[in-house]
Amino acid sequence: MKHYIETNKDRFLEELFSLLRIPSVSSLEQHKPDMQHCAERLVELLLEAGADEASVYPTAGHPLVFGQKITDPSFPTVLVYGHYDVQPIDPVELWHSDPFEPEIRNGAIYARGANDDKGQLFMHIKAFEFMVREGLLKHNVKFILEGEEEIGSPSLAAWAMENKELLASDIILVSDTTMISETVPSINCGMRGLSYVEVKVTGPNKDLHSGHYGGAVANPINVLCDMISSLIDKDGHITIKGFYDDVVLLSDEDRAKLSRAPFDMEEYKEFLGINEVKGEAGYSTLERTGIRPCLDVNGIWGGYTGEGAKTVLPSVAHAKISMRLVPNQDSATITRLFSEHFRAIAPDYVKVEVIPHHGGDGFLIPISSPAYKAAERAMTEVYGIEPVPSRGGGSIPVLADLQRILKVDPLLMGFGLERDTIHSPNESYLLKQFFAGMEAIALFYRYYRL
Amino acid sequence: MKHYIETNKDRFLEELFSLLRIPSVSSLEQHKPDMQHCAERLVELLLEAGADEASVYPTAGHPLVFGQKITDPSFPTVLVYGHYDVQPIDPVELWHSDPFEPEIRNGAIYARGANDDKGQLFMHIKAFEFMVREGLLKHNVKFILEGEEEIGSPSLAAWAMENKELLASDIILVSDTTMISETVPSINCGMRGLSYVEVKVTGPNKDLHSGHYGGAVANPINVLCDMISSLIDKDGHITIKGFYDDVVLLSDEDRAKLSRAPFDMEEYKEFLGINEVKGEAGYSTLERTGIRPCLDVNGIWGGYTGEGAKTVLPSVAHAKISMRLVPNQDSATITRLFSEHFRAIAPDYVKVEVIPHHGGDGFLIPISSPAYKAAERAMTEVYGIEPVPSRGGGSIPVLADLQRILKVDPLLMGFGLERDTIHSPNESYLLKQFFAGMEAIALFYRYYRL
Repeated sequence: MKHYIETNKDRFLEELFSLLRIPSVSSLEQHKPDMQHCAERLVELLLEAGADEASVYPTAGHPLVFGQKITDPSFPTVLVYGHYDVQPIDPVELWHSDPFEPEIRNGAIYARGANDDKGQLFMHIKAFEFMVREGLLKHNVKFILEGEEEIGSPSLAAWAMENKELLASDIILVSDTTMISETVPSINCGMRGLSYVEVKVTGPNKDLHSGHYGGAVANPINVLCDMISSLIDKDGHITIKGFYDDVVLLSDEDRAKLSRAPFDMEEYKEFLGINEVKGEAGYSTLERTGIRPCLDVNGIWGGYTGEGAKTVLPSVAHAKISMRLVPNQDSATITRLFSEHFRAIAPDYVKVEVIPHHGGDGFLIPISSPAYKAAERAMTEVYGIEPVPSRGGGSIPVLADLQRILKVDPLLMGFGLERDTIHSPNESYLLKQFFAGMEAIALFYRYYRL
Repeated sequence: MKHYIETNKDRFLEELFSLLRIPSVSSLEQHKPDMQHCAERLVELLLEAGADEASVYPTAGHPLVFGQKITDPSFPTVLVYGHYDVQPIDPVELWHSDPFEPEIRNGAIYARGANDDKGQLFMHIKAFEFMVREGLLKHNVKFILEGEEEIGSPSLAAWAMENKELLASDIILVSDTTMISETVPSINCGMRGLSYVEVKVTGPNKDLHSGHYGGAVANPINVLCDMISSLIDKDGHITIKGFYDDVVLLSDEDRAKLSRAPFDMEEYKEFLGINEVKGEAGYSTLERTGIRPCLDVNGIWGGYTGEGAKTVLPSVAHAKISMRLVPNQDSATITRLFSEHFRAIAPDYVKVEVIPHHGGDGFLIPISSPAYKAAERAMTEVYGIEPVPSRGGGSIPVLADLQRILKVDPLLMGFGLERDTIHSPNESYLLKQFFAGMEAIALFYRYYRL
């Protein structure tokens, strides 16, 4: 495919940029028209690439895109999953260029979605185009592209239940994750699940003057800090009752296999600008993100947050809290356990609300499957080195749903790198990875046989 | 003065409203022109009321207003202190009417500054006007009105040092506090001091994806919560080393005297909408706000605080923290102790910054002074009941400075009520209190002799 990329490079970038320019932020109501616009653009791109059919499917939330090319019903069928929605762009002042006006700097594309997931899903469209146009395609290919991944995919599972036939396939192929490093290709064989909640702690029924009431009336920010602080103990263990009940402990052998992944602690700390890592006692950094659950506050706010000083004892404090789960932990159960625990530890002098946001289960993929083997061979060819099987810390909860509903395993060939800072300002995607990914995907088709 | 008020009521309100309409928020840069405008309006009002002279005095910050009428150098001199700056208006969506378009509803004026302190300082201008116009004034009266009280009065102390002669007086008279209740008049004989800081906790050098790093990299919001939580122990004691060293313990007799102030716990809780109060073990609610220091988080923010969910492990978390101090605690010392402590408890995996905002010392006024006695008599006449000496929980740090620089005691005749919710949305001031205050101030002049 190298030659095809060389010839079509500029067109590829211009097409990708046309997607990146659409601000398809799924969590913000104001971008609703952009979601529709982005979905329609994907339909155009799929049809131009060679799909027999492609359409926008409305849902209760943001629209889905489905398109396919049925080459021969007896051929293996690959279902490509991707998402066209992106994260919000704040803090917007930290971006060095417009998040929705892609720019190439130092060999990378800078834009919101450059990697996650517009850049990565676009590689699949172009690998497919290459196979079609060169007459090499010996598979049926289906694309399911959603607009709600960043908000927990509330619509896709239900749609998949009603369209099992349409989505019938032998493998779900996904590029929405990272490789270990530029020189260490890896294939994710497991992802963490997610439980995401918002909490609201209310003290007095109005904001008070902190001079008149300070010391006598519980301050909901202080109380929220106490409550959050109590959720994790000194050893990094989560204190929610029953939280670890369903966690499957890995065998020493499995832990040893995982520890084969190269990891340079000094490099890691330098990249993050930290003096020390911090996590659950008894586990390595890779284990802490790969095989252990965790709890993070993703946002907190309350009281006066403007310029200068305001002596207020606020009425309300809020936080967004998420827990990453490992396979066999059930997201709905964890959300329930959290809610029960958080209400139970609330002192009498405040009122507490827990609002579940979204969640999903983790999953594991057999590395002995034909698809894993094909991906391994393809990546070995592109990178000149055998990829490491890894476990991803992130969550694509909908993949666990699709796996359950369609009874098809997902395979995660991700080409992102840590340096891409997805979800953060200045999200980027290395051109090298972008083109290597296309090549590896085309090779996957060459080697994937049932 | 009752008759004079009756006759001039509408004019008084219209003049006050002209002040309230000026959005003189001292902490926000954008209101700089409004500060000047408000100061100029006060000069007009002072001159119209009968001052011999009144001018706007520029400072490094917001301008000061000074005006005076020297009736006879041998008469006692009253220095009226007030402030024309107001608190910010957020959360603005909770106001039932425009904060800067005063409205009378249910016998109260609703506007930012209706009470704190435009409404209260205005009573002094009108009592003064009455005394002048009726030919009753047997005092010299000076007004010092600043525009920086809500941001810690950074300019007034220096100005007072350079203008000691101009401010020479026998008593500093202030209305910027509350009475115990509508039916229980009180005179504040002490105020708490203040130390106000902002803290910044930095973890990784950029926002991270919480799935990829969660569990392995310290989250600065979680760390900030841990740190804040550790500042107060289970008994409500502040854990900062040396924090209580200079606190003077009250005698049992003094505590008994203070406990004379009527206090209805059920009413208090109902007013605030709380099930339980919370504070330092071993002290009553009035003691907790009157004679004990405390620590409150006035604001906290970090990570994603918008609509929906964002799975970010943020780089930075912030909080605004204030400590209310009791007389003999030194604000600068406490700020230093806080900073040292906060840095000392910061774990290796984060960086911590402490930015001091402003502060001031507390003070106590002798209740045997002629001024206190005059105020007591005036309030007894207006309310038909002897006022209770109380200790205020709030801070007017600049009064401690003025006391030190001018060697004159401040007397706090405040007519606010808890229901006025100053610093909060829907700040109000009861018309009844507004007019009773004018009357009491006029009577103060009648009874105040050296």
